[in-house]
Amino acid sequence: METPLHTVDLIRKKRDSGALSPREIEFLVAGAAKESIPLEQLSAWLMASWLNGLTLDEVRALTVAMRDSGEKFDPSGLGKIAVDKHSTGGVGDKTSFLVAPIAAACGVAVPMISGRALGHTGGTLDKLESIPGYRTALSLAEFESVLRKCGASIVSQTPKLVPADRVLYALRDHTATVENAGLICASILSKKLAAGLNALVLDVKTGSGAFLRKREDSEFLAALMVATAEAAGTRTVALLTDMDQPLGRTAGNWIEVAECFDLLRGQRPYESEDLRALSVTLAGWMIHLGNKAAAIQEAEKLAEQALVNGSALAIFLKMVEAQGGDLRVFDNPAAAHKPAAMRVLKAWESGYIAAMDTMEIGWAVQRTGAGREKAGEPVDPHAGIVFHARRGARIEQGQPLATLYGTSEAHLDEAETLFKAAIRFSHEAPAAVPLIGKIFTRKNAEVFLARG
Amino acid sequence: METPLHTVDLIRKKRDSGALSPREIEFLVAGAAKESIPLEQLSAWLMASWLNGLTLDEVRALTVAMRDSGEKFDPSGLGKIAVDKHSTGGVGDKTSFLVAPIAAACGVAVPMISGRALGHTGGTLDKLESIPGYRTALSLAEFESVLRKCGASIVSQTPKLVPADRVLYALRDHTATVENAGLICASILSKKLAAGLNALVLDVKTGSGAFLRKREDSEFLAALMVATAEAAGTRTVALLTDMDQPLGRTAGNWIEVAECFDLLRGQRPYESEDLRALSVTLAGWMIHLGNKAAAIQEAEKLAEQALVNGSALAIFLKMVEAQGGDLRVFDNPAAAHKPAAMRVLKAWESGYIAAMDTMEIGWAVQRTGAGREKAGEPVDPHAGIVFHARRGARIEQGQPLATLYGTSEAHLDEAETLFKAAIRFSHEAPAAVPLIGKIFTRKNAEVFLARG
Repeated sequence: METPLHTVDLIRKKRDSGALSPREIEFLVAGAAKESIPLEQLSAWLMASWLNGLTLDEVRALTVAMRDSGEKFDPSGLGKIAVDKHSTGGVGDKTSFLVAPIAAACGVAVPMISGRALGHTGGTLDKLESIPGYRTALSLAEFESVLRKCGASIVSQTPKLVPADRVLYALRDHTATVENAGLICASILSKKLAAGLNALVLDVKTGSGAFLRKREDSEFLAALMVATAEAAGTRTVALLTDMDQPLGRTAGNWIEVAECFDLLRGQRPYESEDLRALSVTLAGWMIHLGNKAAAIQEAEKLAEQALVNGSALAIFLKMVEAQGGDLRVFDNPAAAHKPAAMRVLKAWESGYIAAMDTMEIGWAVQRTGAGREKAGEPVDPHAGIVFHARRGARIEQGQPLATLYGTSEAHLDEAETLFKAAIRFSHEAPAAVPLIGKIFTRKNAEVFLARG
Repeated sequence: METPLHTVDLIRKKRDSGALSPREIEFLVAGAAKESIPLEQLSAWLMASWLNGLTLDEVRALTVAMRDSGEKFDPSGLGKIAVDKHSTGGVGDKTSFLVAPIAAACGVAVPMISGRALGHTGGTLDKLESIPGYRTALSLAEFESVLRKCGASIVSQTPKLVPADRVLYALRDHTATVENAGLICASILSKKLAAGLNALVLDVKTGSGAFLRKREDSEFLAALMVATAEAAGTRTVALLTDMDQPLGRTAGNWIEVAECFDLLRGQRPYESEDLRALSVTLAGWMIHLGNKAAAIQEAEKLAEQALVNGSALAIFLKMVEAQGGDLRVFDNPAAAHKPAAMRVLKAWESGYIAAMDTMEIGWAVQRTGAGREKAGEPVDPHAGIVFHARRGARIEQGQPLATLYGTSEAHLDEAETLFKAAIRFSHEAPAAVPLIGKIFTRKNAEVFLARG
């Protein structure tokens, strides 16, 4: 018979820099999920973990225990390989609306459980809900039915999925224990892996609009997530991608959906080119890991074709319709955009756009009404910012820089102030930053982590 | 106008090894006392403080904020200097019943707010309550009235005194954040200083029966408490004293009171000699700090006289009576001892008593029924252990080593096992350990702490 575990002993062990065993971590996670361990004990353990760090084995045990803490989705009945994409969050990051239908068009199942806007970042669910009628809160049975019909479905977490994360995440938020790679990794992966994925593509943002601004921190998180997910039995790659400017030409809700719709119907506006390129690459990896192409180059070609030949668009519209969305908004996306207030910001000097503090721009977007400061607040589907110039562009004074759409003039006043403070002009062109940096697969992730 | 404080920011600051300002610490302490800050945030702050350490300024601010978190006792109306003694806790530690009446007999007021038995240590209040009728839960008005009449009073904490400590101590107990010098210092001193003391004598135990077993840890705590209490305006000394064997010849409840009664009435049993010597020294320091003797040697002589001439005994009996105690038990203390079970333990080998693991002996005492494992449990006033031999004694096999008194034979079985495991015999006499080690006053405490 195993000896009974006592929470205070586990806290003490972690406090004294020990590593908890999988059984000990399962005990804490089950206690969080069942709410049988008081929050004050969980937060002491979280702070000790934050300060002393979690070992790779602890992170894996934590991820698996959280993944298994509630109900899970089982995609095996779909008869397809289930692959998802997850981004660590940024500004204007809307690749989900492209990669899900592209990968599905290439024969992969994409059971995507997404999140909401918070702070400076937007949320996939809020953006989708700008389509009248679109339902994100599906039961697992409805989720499976949409997946069977369309190959892709984008929904919100059910209340019974990964209950341990719900408790621990809220706790971390108000005990200053959020920004820890091990805890972030377990939180992200447990939710993703509870969808029963065979493979996962991670888009780890780096730069001024990312949660982790420093490249080395982003690299560590990327390698940790790949090693952890692989150890938990899911094939995984992570791409380090640029978040030193917003992705694409829009940040908001409906305007982001509309930008993706343009790409899906074959338009190629210059300001959306980074979004298109990143989406093709991410979808390519999903297709490759989904065993639909032996090489990544080949997989990217398939992704490109699905965009060009309209098969991704067809799946996107089918999915929206299956989840209750009113497709008539796509008859004239511009006419469907009905912001309460709008304002064009013109360049206040001439020069190159040398830097865009993307977190500040994210807060400007939030202030238009498109985002929320606290969980539970409503968002304005029509608010947001359209960018007319990208980092490195040469701009003349008076030229339009951005169009702000907001809930009211007061919202736009705040957003304008934040936006202006985020832009820096220069007489010289800034150095180019590659859109996609390091790519981690199981092997190089393990080598990276072993280096310490 | 000062900017509003947010708990999560203060946790983050401490997490990142910052030092909180007095205002920030007051905010947390007030939040603990008013229960307006959730326990999970307090425990995250406690764990961050445990792991990153508190600065001297933080410890002082914490002590003062906790002291001031509820109602306080004001002894200024007594017309005497108020001096107390506090011990960090051990086994058979009963000096309070001697030093309080001795110091009071020498003209000092002794407003003593004491605690209860927990784990391996006994509690002054539980011991006093073995006197039928003795009330420890006095209001502050009753406390003052007993002090006015007797010069000394030993009571329990009122519910309104130092409410922040009640919350934080319970929290530390189940979040593995107890054993930290700064937190221990603030918890002890806040409760003592809330009695409005002019001076304080600290008895810091070191050795196998102390909470801090290592001499360097005890020295650090002693120096920290002296520097902190002095900075908070209370003259303070700390004596490092031996807890590598029980103090005196008894550990329990009534048997400890009876041992002190014997010393107060002039008896000098050999096995109580360490208790008597330590009490005279501690009371001497109380008298010295109470300005009743210019030199410590002179103060100790006054203390000795108060024991010999019966004036301390008179005050002790007056105090017991004033707090409702039935003095008839002192007519025949042995007859008043009515344990449910008893057993004499004989030496199972011949040799010197080389070591007594005093914490284990403390647990043996607890198992007789004299102590409690969890707060709130009842204690048996008649249970405990009488020691017939001290460390260093030469013992022949079959000679009585100790007499165990317990709530039942089953209690004695457990206590016997623990007691036997705690005793180590040897063919050679162990080195003598001085009863009183280093003494810290303000000056050498500050020098000690400045050395790092």
